[in-house]
Amino acid sequence: MGEVPESHPRFASLMARKKLTDAAAAGLLADSALIAHGRGEAFDYLLQERTCDAARSAIHACAAHLAGAQRPVISVNGNAVALAGPQLIACAAVLGCPIEVNIYYRTPERMTGLLDTLVKQKAEAEQAFPELQSKIEAVKILGDKPDARIPNLDGPRANCVHEGIYSSDVILVPLEDGDRCEALVAMGKTVCVIDLNPLSRTAKTASITIVDELTRCVPILLEELRKGVEKPPENWDNLRNLEEVTAEMLRLLD
Amino acid sequence: MGEVPESHPRFASLMARKKLTDAAAAGLLADSALIAHGRGEAFDYLLQERTCDAARSAIHACAAHLAGAQRPVISVNGNAVALAGPQLIACAAVLGCPIEVNIYYRTPERMTGLLDTLVKQKAEAEQAFPELQSKIEAVKILGDKPDARIPNLDGPRANCVHEGIYSSDVILVPLEDGDRCEALVAMGKTVCVIDLNPLSRTAKTASITIVDELTRCVPILLEELRKGVEKPPENWDNLRNLEEVTAEMLRLLD
Repeated sequence: MGEVPESHPRFASLMARKKLTDAAAAGLLADSALIAHGRGEAFDYLLQERTCDAARSAIHACAAHLAGAQRPVISVNGNAVALAGPQLIACAAVLGCPIEVNIYYRTPERMTGLLDTLVKQKAEAEQAFPELQSKIEAVKILGDKPDARIPNLDGPRANCVHEGIYSSDVILVPLEDGDRCEALVAMGKTVCVIDLNPLSRTAKTASITIVDELTRCVPILLEELRKGVEKPPENWDNLRNLEEVTAEMLRLLD
Repeated sequence: MGEVPESHPRFASLMARKKLTDAAAAGLLADSALIAHGRGEAFDYLLQERTCDAARSAIHACAAHLAGAQRPVISVNGNAVALAGPQLIACAAVLGCPIEVNIYYRTPERMTGLLDTLVKQKAEAEQAFPELQSKIEAVKILGDKPDARIPNLDGPRANCVHEGIYSSDVILVPLEDGDRCEALVAMGKTVCVIDLNPLSRTAKTASITIVDELTRCVPILLEELRKGVEKPPENWDNLRNLEEVTAEMLRLLD
């Protein structure tokens, strides 16, 4: 890609792209991961690469639900680790919850690669957030020994860890697949997702959908968690929130 | 990806994805190619993966301009070769024009890989369109020895072939970059592009923009070329056509 100056209007987008192509080259991503990222880029383009007000409300609601949870968990896939691993670890540190690697196309190589990357990212997170150091050290990274299954899903994509995703009451899953989002909701969990496509099945199925770009919204989420959040908004209307986001996208197309 | 039945509602989209991930694995694509494809997928999603009426008009206009050209040429990059190489070769056969490989991130390996792929795809095209066999055989594949430059562009992306792109009056460039589209228009050429993002600089700069998915619109273009087309529509209003396409996309978001 060559050097991109920080002043470039699309610096953040180009950096995100670089993180992903590097992760792909390192074998951390499924074939379809870059394509999925590109789909997100198009929707983000319609948002003018900004966190809209509706997304801010959703971030706030997620922070409140996660902070108030009995057993919160953060589930990550390859793209989430590549794009925002250290920041998600910091969120887990503030919440005192585990991070679980849970990928759709599960291979031993990619699982090991992602678990190793998260261990390295812990050190990065400690450098970036020295005041959270002991809490970051304490974050459990789960996923290498799945010992439970998400009901109503076939094959390896159902595998999960009992003390992580399986037993959680509130789960943050950036970039989740539609089927699995549905299955997690059916387990009675509060499912917080991050998805740039407000029309996707994941977006429509989740309890709370943050329609925003991952590297942009996770720092805001972290900030909210660190500030400490009051109790979750009552009567959260997720479909209404999605409508507000699509209205925002329409403004550019219109 | 596993086997996908032809009855799958997204069969065409999944097949396109497979062609591209195979081409990426073969080293034929730049890092950003899969991401670019994903962006297209999102816009195609908003078109409900259908060729809209406005796109049909644009295909018709392109066919007429290409058929009426003195020196038409088809310029292809990695994604175009991977997704629709044989069909584009058939278009070139009907037009009696060359195909030129012209890629943004030019490396000798990818140039050689793409030129070799096109030679193999000629055989595929002959199988698919036996009635065009001799014309397909006669299609020149250019690009290995660039001997001219597109003015107003820096670096290797300016390289082109004198008897191909450089001397053409009408050029079909699926999936072109914004800078290069502008530079080709500035050379006085009629530039026909295929781009799923109606808001992109390429879409707005081109003489005629087909906002449609490549594997869906190239067969329609081929059909039009084979039928023989009357003279180009007078007063083609490309921005008006783009507005019609975005109106189509709005219908889904609205």
